Amino acid sequence: MWFFETLYPDLKIGVKGDIIHEEKTPFQDMKIYHTSRYGKVLTLDGVIQTTQKDEFIYHEMLTHPLLLSHPKPQNVLIIGAGDGGILREVLKHKVKKVTLVEIDQAVIEVSKKHLATINKGSFNDKRAKIVVGDGAKFVKNTKEKFDVIVVDSTDPIGPAKVLFSENFYLDIYRILTKNGLMIRQTGSATLQLTTLKNSTKTLKKVFPIVRTQIIAVPTYIGGFFSLTIGSKTIDTAKVTQKAINQRYAKLKLKTKYYNPDIHFACTKLPNYIGEELR
Amino acid sequence: MWFFETLYPDLKIGVKGDIIHEEKTPFQDMKIYHTSRYGKVLTLDGVIQTTQKDEFIYHEMLTHPLLLSHPKPQNVLIIGAGDGGILREVLKHKVKKVTLVEIDQAVIEVSKKHLATINKGSFNDKRAKIVVGDGAKFVKNTKEKFDVIVVDSTDPIGPAKVLFSENFYLDIYRILTKNGLMIRQTGSATLQLTTLKNSTKTLKKVFPIVRTQIIAVPTYIGGFFSLTIGSKTIDTAKVTQKAINQRYAKLKLKTKYYNPDIHFACTKLPNYIGEELR
Repeated sequence: MWFFETLYPDLKIGVKGDIIHEEKTPFQDMKIYHTSRYGKVLTLDGVIQTTQKDEFIYHEMLTHPLLLSHPKPQNVLIIGAGDGGILREVLKHKVKKVTLVEIDQAVIEVSKKHLATINKGSFNDKRAKIVVGDGAKFVKNTKEKFDVIVVDSTDPIGPAKVLFSENFYLDIYRILTKNGLMIRQTGSATLQLTTLKNSTKTLKKVFPIVRTQIIAVPTYIGGFFSLTIGSKTIDTAKVTQKAINQRYAKLKLKTKYYNPDIHFACTKLPNYIGEELR
Repeated sequence: MWFFETLYPDLKIGVKGDIIHEEKTPFQDMKIYHTSRYGKVLTLDGVIQTTQKDEFIYHEMLTHPLLLSHPKPQNVLIIGAGDGGILREVLKHKVKKVTLVEIDQAVIEVSKKHLATINKGSFNDKRAKIVVGDGAKFVKNTKEKFDVIVVDSTDPIGPAKVLFSENFYLDIYRILTKNGLMIRQTGSATLQLTTLKNSTKTLKKVFPIVRTQIIAVPTYIGGFFSLTIGSKTIDTAKVTQKAINQRYAKLKLKTKYYNPDIHFACTKLPNYIGEELR
């Protein structure tokens, strides 16, 4: 059986597979397919979110560049990411506490059941605190401060739209510590260039340092996929190579995509992307 | 109307468009579609070869890294690439002669007619010599020597298989000048990893320096796409940044993807690719 992603009206990717879970949650239409190419694939509202085979790319690149650029990240906040992949990567660092705020409990439950290779028991780590709730409300109301905040939301259509707003980023800024950094996905650098441009513009209003990372994820069609960092003082692209090498080695990090060379290489943009973001 | 690429049995990309040319040549089944997303799209045997919208990525990255790493490239050979895109980019350099050997005259003709934005009159440049013939035979028989050779073949299934063989690379080595370099496409670094691994192994038998570049092309699905360089003396990743900056500036190169930062960044491999090629 073929299933096709329906993200774009004139473009689609099809993967052969069988549907093994289907659920209308209060927030979205959730499906899990089993494919021989990518293992299990999670879709929300018809859009591929993660696959067992290539999830490591997105999850590593949303975490290690920030956590290794910060000299001592201790308190981390994750918005979204109910599959647990980000949490797994953050917990590889010497953090004291990681709070994950996911709006849709069903995503957590189905991920625990079907995507255990992604969350790998991270929900049970003593440092992890799982909150089922609205990420925008959480950042508005929390009294805590965080060193690193990872926003792993769906695209700015539907429920996640608020997570792309200036007010949301102002709240994020407020709850970051002095040298804090945040990162979020900002879509395909070609197919969703408007998302990337608008996000960059909005983030630049709030953060003195904004840095774009480009990565290639097989199941996110459209060439480079973008992740954008907003930071108070630390520019991940200007930390010394030596510091990154040392921290990476000291943690004995086992990564499949990230390495200290990629740390810097992923911030070098082709002209056609760089020129759009100036 | 949707058309779907048929390169993989369990995976496909679909683009909405209209067919505007269809031809069975003596070598392959050739089609041109018009799409609003990617402009005109050329397919050979059902596989997307190039599109007006994103062709610059592949064409720039198969040429400038070599032509700027070589101190004085004068004589260049292109195998395949009947659409003229590689030729266009090579002619931006101070070369004396560029020979293009394309096996299928129909590809040249249809590209002149439908893909003029790609070849941009380069077939009429006085420095260009167009040969309709078999690339493998050409490299076996030519008495000329070349500074740079670009092999732009289809995948190693069907007629292009010989262009992935050790004997072919031995001929290439023989007809390269003392500091000569060659480059070829070696497929998606995930979906065609076997092609990349085998090509790397074969090239290492022939060339003292083998270097992998990774690029992201929206219409080549599967994450990073790989280009592999075989070289006698020059490592494109170890040329000085200063030399590349100077040569790029001196030529006043107008590029949409390539720039001196990308020159080096594209040689930094994620662990899951790098480890496979060691």
